[in-house]
Amino acid sequence: MPHNIIKPKFSAMDSFQISTASRSQFIDITGQVQKLVAESRMADGFCHIWVPHTTAGLTVNENADPTVVEDILKQLDRMVPWDNHYRHGEGNSAAHIKSSLMGCRLTVTIKDGRLLLGTWQGIYFCEFDGPRQRQVWVGVMAKG
Amino acid sequence: MPHNIIKPKFSAMDSFQISTASRSQFIDITGQVQKLVAESRMADGFCHIWVPHTTAGLTVNENADPTVVEDILKQLDRMVPWDNHYRHGEGNSAAHIKSSLMGCRLTVTIKDGRLLLGTWQGIYFCEFDGPRQRQVWVGVMAKG
Amino acid sequence: MPHNIIKPKFSAMDSFQISTASRSQFIDITGQVQKLVAESRMADGFCHIWVPHTTAGLTVNENADPTVVEDILKQLDRMVPWDNHYRHGEGNSAAHIKSSLMGCRLTVTIKDGRLLLGTWQGIYFCEFDGPRQRQVWVGVMAKG
Repeated sequence: MPHNIIKPKFSAMDSFQISTASRSQFIDITGQVQKLVAESRMADGFCHIWVPHTTAGLTVNENADPTVVEDILKQLDRMVPWDNHYRHGEGNSAAHIKSSLMGCRLTVTIKDGRLLLGTWQGIYFCEFDGPRQRQVWVGVMAKG
Repeated sequence: MPHNIIKPKFSAMDSFQISTASRSQFIDITGQVQKLVAESRMADGFCHIWVPHTTAGLTVNENADPTVVEDILKQLDRMVPWDNHYRHGEGNSAAHIKSSLMGCRLTVTIKDGRLLLGTWQGIYFCEFDGPRQRQVWVGVMAKG
Repeated sequence: MPHNIIKPKFSAMDSFQISTASRSQFIDITGQVQKLVAESRMADGFCHIWVPHTTAGLTVNENADPTVVEDILKQLDRMVPWDNHYRHGEGNSAAHIKSSLMGCRLTVTIKDGRLLLGTWQGIYFCEFDGPRQRQVWVGVMAKG
């Protein structure tokens, strides 16, 4: 493994907001995350993305054909029906369950100031109880 | 993104034990993880939590109404029934499957010595084959 | 928490290739990841593993009895059938969905140059649309 020995620097957290438009929706946030990474002027290290909500999540999947994320959302609905004799009084337990299935966090390696993703990979914010205003938090630990 | 350029320090791993009380149970470990982060005297960086077991996991979800985690556990049981013609002789394949669905690891950003969580988020240890004695490992990489 | 205050160093990314043999298959890659970690000569920190594909994933589960991963694969097939009125024209939506359920990334703590895993834990590459040639990316941020 070629070495690249440097003193990492740590950037303070930053965040951005997104508005979701329906109950269940995947929104490609790759560009917004990449913008914050570029603004941090960090070159090589890790970027950690966090959704501070319990009825939303993060995933990585194909960014070319939009029917892929449609199929993911539809299958999650089949696996976790909206109404299913849940006890939680707010009526949105399905959204909480899907949030735990996708997870609310995502670490991506940064190289030369760019998120290191595969050719067809996009980073998706997963809305499971919209429409709402949502936040995404981004932290970077990397060399300057 | 506002900079906060420092030399990160790395804390040795630490761990704690928990006792689970039933086959399937979510236990809020946010306070125990926060205690180790505070003891590390690290201010800003990443905390990485790891469950060294293959029939348990970690998730983040609502810490206000306990029926939320009850609903998650119940739906996971519906999706992954305990008995389902599995081949593994120990009879706990459902617990292994749920462990992979939730994941055994969780990275959280630390800021000013605090785990950076949303208002309603708690960190849950997920027991899927209890009751047992379990371990949770916590590593911190952050500025001092 | 015992301190071990050092200046972390960041290793450039490295990667390896694997060939999968069937449509759905879990392959234990613990040894290959450990080899790259050893070659990085980093002692204590975090290792981040990334699969740059949208029809594959990563998970951690039991490495002793091979029927465990067989049971996981079979139950994922039950939860996400290969044919299920999906819209994506390539016909591999089930593989995309399983990729999001397992996740394409995995962070592991490194201590004394070793991946810190539980006794029965192995790191598995999850093939969901094989057989194919696949890549695994590994980044290390740790003290030297």
